[in-house]
Amino acid sequence: MRYFTAGESHGPQLTAIIEGLPAQMELTAEMINGELSRRQGGHGRGRRMQIEKDQVVISSGVRHGKTLGSPVTLTVVNDDWKHWTTIMGVEPLADDVNPEDVKRQITRPRPGHADLVGGMKYGHRDLRNVLERSSARETTMRVAIGAVAKQFLRELGIHTVAHVTEIGGFTTDPDTYAGLGTAELREIIVNDSVYCADPQASVQMVQAIDEAKRRGDTLGGVVEVIVEGCPPGIGSYVQFDRKMDGKLAGAMMSINAFKGVEFGIGFQMAKKYGSEVHDEIAWNEEQGYIRKSNRLGGLEGGMTTGMPIVVRGVMKPIPTLYKPLESVDIDTKEAFVATIERSDPCAVPAASVVAEHVIATEMAKAIMDEFRSDTMDGLKKEIEEYRRYVKEF
Amino acid sequence: MRYFTAGESHGPQLTAIIEGLPAQMELTAEMINGELSRRQGGHGRGRRMQIEKDQVVISSGVRHGKTLGSPVTLTVVNDDWKHWTTIMGVEPLADDVNPEDVKRQITRPRPGHADLVGGMKYGHRDLRNVLERSSARETTMRVAIGAVAKQFLRELGIHTVAHVTEIGGFTTDPDTYAGLGTAELREIIVNDSVYCADPQASVQMVQAIDEAKRRGDTLGGVVEVIVEGCPPGIGSYVQFDRKMDGKLAGAMMSINAFKGVEFGIGFQMAKKYGSEVHDEIAWNEEQGYIRKSNRLGGLEGGMTTGMPIVVRGVMKPIPTLYKPLESVDIDTKEAFVATIERSDPCAVPAASVVAEHVIATEMAKAIMDEFRSDTMDGLKKEIEEYRRYVKEF
Amino acid sequence: MRYFTAGESHGPQLTAIIEGLPAQMELTAEMINGELSRRQGGHGRGRRMQIEKDQVVISSGVRHGKTLGSPVTLTVVNDDWKHWTTIMGVEPLADDVNPEDVKRQITRPRPGHADLVGGMKYGHRDLRNVLERSSARETTMRVAIGAVAKQFLRELGIHTVAHVTEIGGFTTDPDTYAGLGTAELREIIVNDSVYCADPQASVQMVQAIDEAKRRGDTLGGVVEVIVEGCPPGIGSYVQFDRKMDGKLAGAMMSINAFKGVEFGIGFQMAKKYGSEVHDEIAWNEEQGYIRKSNRLGGLEGGMTTGMPIVVRGVMKPIPTLYKPLESVDIDTKEAFVATIERSDPCAVPAASVVAEHVIATEMAKAIMDEFRSDTMDGLKKEIEEYRRYVKEF
Amino acid sequence: MRYFTAGESHGPQLTAIIEGLPAQMELTAEMINGELSRRQGGHGRGRRMQIEKDQVVISSGVRHGKTLGSPVTLTVVNDDWKHWTTIMGVEPLADDVNPEDVKRQITRPRPGHADLVGGMKYGHRDLRNVLERSSARETTMRVAIGAVAKQFLRELGIHTVAHVTEIGGFTTDPDTYAGLGTAELREIIVNDSVYCADPQASVQMVQAIDEAKRRGDTLGGVVEVIVEGCPPGIGSYVQFDRKMDGKLAGAMMSINAFKGVEFGIGFQMAKKYGSEVHDEIAWNEEQGYIRKSNRLGGLEGGMTTGMPIVVRGVMKPIPTLYKPLESVDIDTKEAFVATIERSDPCAVPAASVVAEHVIATEMAKAIMDEFRSDTMDGLKKEIEEYRRYVKEF
Repeated sequence: MRYFTAGESHGPQLTAIIEGLPAQMELTAEMINGELSRRQGGHGRGRRMQIEKDQVVISSGVRHGKTLGSPVTLTVVNDDWKHWTTIMGVEPLADDVNPEDVKRQITRPRPGHADLVGGMKYGHRDLRNVLERSSARETTMRVAIGAVAKQFLRELGIHTVAHVTEIGGFTTDPDTYAGLGTAELREIIVNDSVYCADPQASVQMVQAIDEAKRRGDTLGGVVEVIVEGCPPGIGSYVQFDRKMDGKLAGAMMSINAFKGVEFGIGFQMAKKYGSEVHDEIAWNEEQGYIRKSNRLGGLEGGMTTGMPIVVRGVMKPIPTLYKPLESVDIDTKEAFVATIERSDPCAVPAASVVAEHVIATEMAKAIMDEFRSDTMDGLKKEIEEYRRYVKEF
Repeated sequence: MRYFTAGESHGPQLTAIIEGLPAQMELTAEMINGELSRRQGGHGRGRRMQIEKDQVVISSGVRHGKTLGSPVTLTVVNDDWKHWTTIMGVEPLADDVNPEDVKRQITRPRPGHADLVGGMKYGHRDLRNVLERSSARETTMRVAIGAVAKQFLRELGIHTVAHVTEIGGFTTDPDTYAGLGTAELREIIVNDSVYCADPQASVQMVQAIDEAKRRGDTLGGVVEVIVEGCPPGIGSYVQFDRKMDGKLAGAMMSINAFKGVEFGIGFQMAKKYGSEVHDEIAWNEEQGYIRKSNRLGGLEGGMTTGMPIVVRGVMKPIPTLYKPLESVDIDTKEAFVATIERSDPCAVPAASVVAEHVIATEMAKAIMDEFRSDTMDGLKKEIEEYRRYVKEF
Repeated sequence: MRYFTAGESHGPQLTAIIEGLPAQMELTAEMINGELSRRQGGHGRGRRMQIEKDQVVISSGVRHGKTLGSPVTLTVVNDDWKHWTTIMGVEPLADDVNPEDVKRQITRPRPGHADLVGGMKYGHRDLRNVLERSSARETTMRVAIGAVAKQFLRELGIHTVAHVTEIGGFTTDPDTYAGLGTAELREIIVNDSVYCADPQASVQMVQAIDEAKRRGDTLGGVVEVIVEGCPPGIGSYVQFDRKMDGKLAGAMMSINAFKGVEFGIGFQMAKKYGSEVHDEIAWNEEQGYIRKSNRLGGLEGGMTTGMPIVVRGVMKPIPTLYKPLESVDIDTKEAFVATIERSDPCAVPAASVVAEHVIATEMAKAIMDEFRSDTMDGLKKEIEEYRRYVKEF
Repeated sequence: MRYFTAGESHGPQLTAIIEGLPAQMELTAEMINGELSRRQGGHGRGRRMQIEKDQVVISSGVRHGKTLGSPVTLTVVNDDWKHWTTIMGVEPLADDVNPEDVKRQITRPRPGHADLVGGMKYGHRDLRNVLERSSARETTMRVAIGAVAKQFLRELGIHTVAHVTEIGGFTTDPDTYAGLGTAELREIIVNDSVYCADPQASVQMVQAIDEAKRRGDTLGGVVEVIVEGCPPGIGSYVQFDRKMDGKLAGAMMSINAFKGVEFGIGFQMAKKYGSEVHDEIAWNEEQGYIRKSNRLGGLEGGMTTGMPIVVRGVMKPIPTLYKPLESVDIDTKEAFVATIERSDPCAVPAASVVAEHVIATEMAKAIMDEFRSDTMDGLKKEIEEYRRYVKEF
């Protein structure tokens, strides 16, 4: 599986092409739309999220609800486009038009955004040319692609969920959701306003977000993604670039505003003895090989172990701030204080949805790469057989 | 730049091929050997490290001390090979040889290693066939490749260093080395027995390692890599897989035993307001654009900002344990307690060397990919010109 | 530069995403539409080509006529789609619909098409699921992408043209157009009904096509693509997969119905002495290094030499035949004679347009990969400087 | 499967790393050495071929005659290296050494070689730095890698052979070997001095080579590679870069001195009606689907059809000439006539060996990419099952 996303934040549409999906997999727009709407939710999102109700259109690769094996095209039209047709128009401006009138040119880079460096790199003196693409709006298509990946994984008995474990320093108590499977976790978080599985922490997080909003400030947080039911042996130790944890970490860190990633007990491993970290191996006839714990988060030697994959990412607070930071106008080189703009105080719940879909995409890709994946039926049989084999190994 | 490593832990040699280096870059075996020996040092390493004094041989791509533009082959011969010629022999066993006699077959997977899953994946019932490649011995070649990358970066005025910031829960106080450049930091850590820049923390770390050794246990830790002098705009926000932080995180996590990675203040961002996280932008004639702080670790929007790149990785404690964990024999399916084996109590200092080289490799690769890099001289001029351009942007 | 195409022949639309274009390159839909219409022309095309007047829509990556550096999305809507909404519908069929009524299911694979093997590979028993994607309709997007590539090359002073050199055994006499540049050649072929530069051969080709039509048969032919103005040294000899001729040959052969490719005097080299094949090298102050002839077609050692690239491809006759061939129904396993279907007697002129654009795409990609290509202005300057350097080498 | 080759013509050794081979495949140095020696044979090779008796050493990825799944390193030591240690030394020259004395510097580029353009590209004013890598000596490793690929294919019941079909204008009569399988063909050509399957043509070719030698000239030719037993459906029509013919053509054209490639009846397709080109489809219980002819050379829609793959490549005459061509000294810019050098009059037989191995490599790679290929046993079973499935499709 390979894919690209395209589209500017205020352009006519976002597009993605997904190449290499198996044929005969069930796929409908509805399967994707539900996830897009979850990405737009969560306490702490502002007005824009309500304006845009993202709906995907599938325009290739699917016929009568089933994939064809050919590339799948996904499009999300930007409802707001009608207000941006001159500012963001594709065709050259007519000769009698004054660019100043239509461009809403931006020369003041915001700290924490791609604005300044993106301008340098691509030679844009109108920084709108940067921020239109560097915007987190792009994550819409990461979720759309991930929804396809999740459908793929689901057909193989692999399930994913993401939940929020920290916002503004308030963390969940893992004991409150210990032992819950992905389905149970999902049931809890879909009803929680910050997609958090610990009700008490959830209340604190909501309060923290409200307080940040009052201060004109923003908050980051930590999200956890769990992948359940993955067969062991995906990824490999034989070459550095085939390690599954490397791929998952790279994918997680490619999400806008993510600045750290860890597996299992993660950075806690620096504080413990080896005897407290590694997971003992056991075997029984029913389950085959299992680990008595899962501190390593489902990955050993760059490969899945068959235990749930547990990966967390930290998202920085959204840099668009009511509370302004100093920057420099690139035309005048004069310092200015970033003007007040519309901003969400916290996007961590939404980011948890993105993270889940990005991880699902990477897992689906790895499975398609390693197994024959021309047809969904063939793949299902192959995975089943492989599961039987590893149980008896 | 592309590269592969090859070689088993007790095979005749380790090999790497590096493809795509510029021509006319200075390169000698000596430049690499120094780094290899640093990888073998650090308090907490056992006897094996002393046995092997790794020396690289360059057998292609370099003539009279300068690269040719053609692939560079690096080899590190395994001095111990003479004791392993039958156990690890390449040719088929003679008919009159009893495999039992020569194979030292392993059927007992160690928790925390690739043993069990690797055996499943590749169908090896002799788990030696896994551990010979999944061993951290492979990091020798990551360091050798990274030494070439560091030489490349050095010629462009880009410098790297790594130091240990945590072992067994003892952490450095960043104030003790705040404001130090890579050269100054290097001077400190080369004289420190755990490659740590805070002398007080170093003492605690050494004691912790000694204590772990006494207990027959192991310790993990955190290493920090700094890249100084990198021009802004390496990496890109336009497509998910071109983000530099994604690449660096993926590379870091591909090192044996690494389980987490973070940039700048990393997971602390979940505990702070946005106004405390983002770095204000300033400009002056001498330096051009700068950031007043570097909490984001030198990366914004998936691109380098020109500030030092600061990336940390957490290493789990070495899983080979004197203090044994339970596992299962794959032939009998019976539980056993992992037998006592020779083990280092702590490899975090060595891992800091590996991390530095892996990050250097990824940065060098990114620069070669983005700039014309057929000749070192041409590249130097181009980078210089680009630096001038971004200063005046 | 990377790209994907997507879309079924009778689906709602064709889509392409192009990733990695430089910023600030001029690009409008008009630049692409002219090429699309040339692909639909040429003597020997049937009615369908007249029905579809392909028009591209750009929906990302371009603002006010200039590229942004972000991915460019191209869409060509299928005007005929309204007649296919049930047959090719994306959503699952309603429960009360009889699939037989809407599917126009195909169980009879056509010889020379992907039908049979595609069905096997992807498990499609309705072979429409194959032919909708394997159709040469896809080459529309290859041309659209190539039109972007040609615009890129043009800004660097690199020009391309394609012309037909053989149809149905009638070949051009190279002396009739010897010494003509790409611009002059283009002027001739745009006015020729089979895109042929030799007027006499053109007449013969037209007659041959008409004769084939009368017989209910089809004809193939040979097309030649010329790339003029390319700097020397694109591609490399240092690793097998970096040879420019390998890339161009692979690209040419990826066009539907192409079965052979050759450079310069090509297969004639098997019939000549070395002294008659190689191109002597000369130098003069004005031009720098030149070759006195161009039998090798502008490539030596896997690299461009600075001489025009001359590459030819052979296209087999279109397999859809009035004159039927035997095949087997995959449901009944019974032999049948392929039913008469609408078919063009010859698509070689159109294929010359596709070949030109595919070769242009590959050359543009190679230049973007080797040179810093974030901005068009920067790239132009770099190429200029490089041209000066090689002249004085 | 991925791989790199490395090494200079007169350097200490040639090296290759092959990544991604299945585990438990039988592999010994002997399997490779036989092929290396065939590459060194054939009427028309000069003295150097006799000097070097290439022998491969395997130094990773294989244990007791079976692959481990880890990267395989292949090395061919250059016996002649002892005479080149100063000229091609890796370490910098000592200060008291005059570079003029040791470098055997080359400033006179040979027409038809990479010399001139390679020098420009990599900034080498000593063109030895180019020719040492651009030399056909590199094809030794292409053969070594291909020998591994052939062993892989053999275990799956896929067999390859190459034979010479034209030298210096003398062509074989296909009727003399029509209907012969790869094994029978091999038996003939191993006993023929130019690896030709038509005894009469062979005599003419030998005479032509001898005549060329007398004239101090060289000859090119055409080689044909056949792959038998490949299952249908390798490659895909769904995306341009997944077409198997594109990959094979690209690989063939990446061989030194190859300038054209064609499948089946190739360029003859421009001279025939469609009804004479396409292969009718039939089915019978024993064989499943077959084609009544194989004019398309075993590929349709970018996929293997199950019929033998037939691909031909044209090799230009070796450019090193006794009969000299004009060139220019890059230091003085003065014209000179290329000095007389040792040269083989014809390397087409050897090139047929290279072509066979390059095509085998590409086919093996494609199969490994599409099927689960971690273990040889698993893959064998999967391919068997797939063959059964397509038969009954």
